[in-house]
Amino acid sequence: MAAEIVNPKDGLDEDMIDPAFALHRGGKMAVQATVPVRDADDLSLAYTPGVAKVCSAIAEQPELVHDYTWRSQVVAVVTDGSAVLGLGDIGPAASLPVMEGKAILFKQFGGVDAVPIALDCREVDELVETVARLAPSFGGINLEDISAPRCFEIEEQLKKRLDIPVFHDDQHGTAIVTLAALRNASRLAGRTLGDLRVVISGAGAAGVAIAKILVEAGIGDVAVCDRKGVVSRDREDLNSAKRDLAGFTNKAGLVGSLESALDGADVFIGVSGGTVPEEAVATMADGAFIFAMANPNPEIHPDVARKYASVVATGRSDYPNQINNVLAFPGVFAGALQVRASEITEGMKIAAAEALAAVVADELSAERVIPSPFDERVAPAVTSAVAAAARAEGVARA
Amino acid sequence: MAAEIVNPKDGLDEDMIDPAFALHRGGKMAVQATVPVRDADDLSLAYTPGVAKVCSAIAEQPELVHDYTWRSQVVAVVTDGSAVLGLGDIGPAASLPVMEGKAILFKQFGGVDAVPIALDCREVDELVETVARLAPSFGGINLEDISAPRCFEIEEQLKKRLDIPVFHDDQHGTAIVTLAALRNASRLAGRTLGDLRVVISGAGAAGVAIAKILVEAGIGDVAVCDRKGVVSRDREDLNSAKRDLAGFTNKAGLVGSLESALDGADVFIGVSGGTVPEEAVATMADGAFIFAMANPNPEIHPDVARKYASVVATGRSDYPNQINNVLAFPGVFAGALQVRASEITEGMKIAAAEALAAVVADELSAERVIPSPFDERVAPAVTSAVAAAARAEGVARA
Repeated sequence: MAAEIVNPKDGLDEDMIDPAFALHRGGKMAVQATVPVRDADDLSLAYTPGVAKVCSAIAEQPELVHDYTWRSQVVAVVTDGSAVLGLGDIGPAASLPVMEGKAILFKQFGGVDAVPIALDCREVDELVETVARLAPSFGGINLEDISAPRCFEIEEQLKKRLDIPVFHDDQHGTAIVTLAALRNASRLAGRTLGDLRVVISGAGAAGVAIAKILVEAGIGDVAVCDRKGVVSRDREDLNSAKRDLAGFTNKAGLVGSLESALDGADVFIGVSGGTVPEEAVATMADGAFIFAMANPNPEIHPDVARKYASVVATGRSDYPNQINNVLAFPGVFAGALQVRASEITEGMKIAAAEALAAVVADELSAERVIPSPFDERVAPAVTSAVAAAARAEGVARA
Repeated sequence: MAAEIVNPKDGLDEDMIDPAFALHRGGKMAVQATVPVRDADDLSLAYTPGVAKVCSAIAEQPELVHDYTWRSQVVAVVTDGSAVLGLGDIGPAASLPVMEGKAILFKQFGGVDAVPIALDCREVDELVETVARLAPSFGGINLEDISAPRCFEIEEQLKKRLDIPVFHDDQHGTAIVTLAALRNASRLAGRTLGDLRVVISGAGAAGVAIAKILVEAGIGDVAVCDRKGVVSRDREDLNSAKRDLAGFTNKAGLVGSLESALDGADVFIGVSGGTVPEEAVATMADGAFIFAMANPNPEIHPDVARKYASVVATGRSDYPNQINNVLAFPGVFAGALQVRASEITEGMKIAAAEALAAVVADELSAERVIPSPFDERVAPAVTSAVAAAARAEGVARA
């Protein structure tokens, strides 16, 4: 997102310029005690000497930490500030407003406590090691705004090392919501996922994860394009994440540009920024679905998209069908924490997408393939589905 | 503290055994949003797209992070679980109830947000590096329950690396409250600090820090004893922290046992556990002060101490004059954060002790050399004094 930068050095009172500054003054979150500390009796239970008995019990039976601390209800929102929104590499401190925002969305939508952890380190090994050292304090790790391809390696290593859920929201949150929207668009159009050919513009965190979940969910074929065109096996300029991608996508063996890939495609999914020319959009199959999710400027403007597509979605709140991660991550973590899942599996993600799609139910229309972020049925539905899937997949521990 | 260990494996319902377990169920803290997220307009300010402007402004002017995030009001309560209460090395997870307890005391008494960070690493360098990487997320670092002598080196290195307050509460919190009690005991007895000879039992985190603050505050002489007796320059079994200690304490050149050092001493300060024989207590100077702070069993039982001392203090809430760190750390951090202090200096600690002592004022008596933890005047007094001292010492940045 190309942010309008307000520079308080210009001598303006920044709180007057944009209501976002006034809202952010003093931060957006706080800690609260959930037990009383009014008198010596309270203190002797919540702190010394009473607390010692609880510590000793956990030392003897480590799993009691889930019962007698906030650990199993608190998630670390971890970033290095290397890929913050569309702003890019602004570093850990400047990323904090996003991490706080994420933390309060966890709370408001999923009832999950979350703490912003913006780390001052960049090497994959350092990030992994640091998060692994922090892990005893948290019930889950939500990775956020870490640049690709580092984010893939970091998530992969952490998933191996830790026995708590590790979830890179820029990947999987986006993927879950996209799959949900695509399910409902297909339902509306009377299509089956197996018949659809999808073109994804963007081979970063979101693009890779969307490709994975769509293939997992049984989509017909997915071609992912980066700036140089379709990611295909014969390209020699691919990093390891894109080589993996080339291995399980593009069954059709497309080569060349995004524009050429769109010819006859059933679905366009944009997670790249940039603009797709209308001529190329016009070559898509009849009744196509266009999910142009770049913010604030969709790859295909909704007014253009509607001329060629039966269902149009964006990342914006001012158009119908907003693909918004907040539809997924609060319920995903709430469900995983509820059953003390050791990880968040592909099956749990697909279950989250199915549950999210099902919330729309009878209200399904071209303008409503995905629920509103403020639909109160969303988080409970996703939470239940994820918890049930964790049990079914054998990763639940409670 | 020798905790009574309750083992739920015994088949009892642990919540029935001790009210501490019932109180701890689900943990003792939560996160809350301090801004509304009720509708799309709220979301567009607190999260995307509004938040991007705030992030960009901080990227341009890093000091704005203090205005527009919770950073400058949140402290990390950091431990490795190596010296938890009197329980010893129980590891990071089992230490969490203490860290949560500390966090809620920060909030309740000082209005400071705090987050438990229990780290799974042990080497000094690893702990330092990990905390340094976390630092962009926090306005201050409260080190807690880290074993000596590692705690000294960790604090020292972090103070050098970070430009935010780093404070090892087991050292400095205890030292501040002890100095405050000693000030008031001296005032009551009409003695001056410079005339007092102090014997400290315990050369761990608390003992070393108490010795330092007392010397800094102008006490006559301090002899610190470990299990082998007085820490003196001629001993060859000292680690580097104790060698430092020998360099600035024990002007009288005492050697030998704690018991022999007590002969004629004006003040006993116990931060060791163990028991001091009554015969040795009887050899102290007339009108001595005895602060026997081991929990739950003071080194000298208050009933014995009162036979020989004019002022008796303990670490227990069921006797008068409880030396309780909660009298110091909430206000110390609140004051330091209020003025964005870059560190917590010796001067700020002494100012905290003076302010704490002054709260007692006209109520000063042998049973009241230190205020109650629930005296609502304490935190504001300490906060103001610490903020003013930070300004006076040139470490305030706001």
